[in-house]
Amino acid sequence: MSLNEQIAFLLHADKLKNVVRKNKLVSGERNENSAEHSWHVSLQAVVLAGHAPENLKLDTVLKMLTIHDIIEIQAGDHWVTEENETDVATLEAAAAEETFSLLPDNQAAEFKALWAEFEAGDSPEAKFANAMDALHPMLQVFGPNASGFCHQPLSADFLRRKKAPRLAPYPDLWAYAQSLLDAAVRNGYLMP
Amino acid sequence: MSLNEQIAFLLHADKLKNVVRKNKLVSGERNENSAEHSWHVSLQAVVLAGHAPENLKLDTVLKMLTIHDIIEIQAGDHWVTEENETDVATLEAAAAEETFSLLPDNQAAEFKALWAEFEAGDSPEAKFANAMDALHPMLQVFGPNASGFCHQPLSADFLRRKKAPRLAPYPDLWAYAQSLLDAAVRNGYLMP
Repeated sequence: MSLNEQIAFLLHADKLKNVVRKNKLVSGERNENSAEHSWHVSLQAVVLAGHAPENLKLDTVLKMLTIHDIIEIQAGDHWVTEENETDVATLEAAAAEETFSLLPDNQAAEFKALWAEFEAGDSPEAKFANAMDALHPMLQVFGPNASGFCHQPLSADFLRRKKAPRLAPYPDLWAYAQSLLDAAVRNGYLMP
Repeated sequence: MSLNEQIAFLLHADKLKNVVRKNKLVSGERNENSAEHSWHVSLQAVVLAGHAPENLKLDTVLKMLTIHDIIEIQAGDHWVTEENETDVATLEAAAAEETFSLLPDNQAAEFKALWAEFEAGDSPEAKFANAMDALHPMLQVFGPNASGFCHQPLSADFLRRKKAPRLAPYPDLWAYAQSLLDAAVRNGYLMP
């Protein structure tokens, strides 16, 4: 029965609350988990939607951000680099296939398509969702009065190159993100 | 500047990750926090939206569920009873006024209105968001293979009366919720 499959998926998704991310809470007291991140990045999208072009389908953005990390229950949270990017993509695609197949068939197909759209990052909604996902940990770590804690030594230059493809399409958000990197260098949280 | 106010609100909202709820994770290993709940109840709304009447504005439902608990940073998470209901409502309304005022004026007004609409529970979107909020802890605690842990001794009859106003408008979801209560009685998690 369809409802039973939906419930089974929802109970499986509970495990996202135990997937620990690399970044800390703003206070620095502990690492964030991926369920908390998924909520906070959705809130960020609601708050910052006015910085995206008009006619953005916000319901699609919020659906994407709500489901985008569920695959981490199986695939884990990865710090993606040029070296591991193909392996991580393969791992995550397999996890998406398996995880969303818990849902009734029509919904499984819808969620897989939505996740693939987010990963491809081509539609206006996927672009904005990706920009939100790229900005969120920068706020958490380098925002006003945040901890500045990086899980490994990083440079502002490296992060500028990593984040630009997803954030530069939103000039005011990208300018703000770069001002955070500049401040992080001044505060000694990042190498130049 | 508007963006700075938006960022200040988002960083304040981070504290929701430290607001501990009465219910446990499905596994029973620790209590859930309100940020995790806000994500999971949004996911539940996406998954179960087909059980609501058509023409539901899902973006409004998701916005409501994403912001509905932020007031708990100031007001705390309360187990509402007939005795404390007026006091909790007063406390939460004051928290909504103060918390959402961190945002730029136009957005502050929008978020206050959205929160008030959720609390009133009259619009189709507020009704469904409230139903989701009422169902979520029942799934977490009494769903298949969940812990069954209640923070205080409770009866199925009490929960049936508490949950009916919000869930009964969705017959299949309410039937399912009641089947969870029946199973919880059989398993010794609830008094009849």
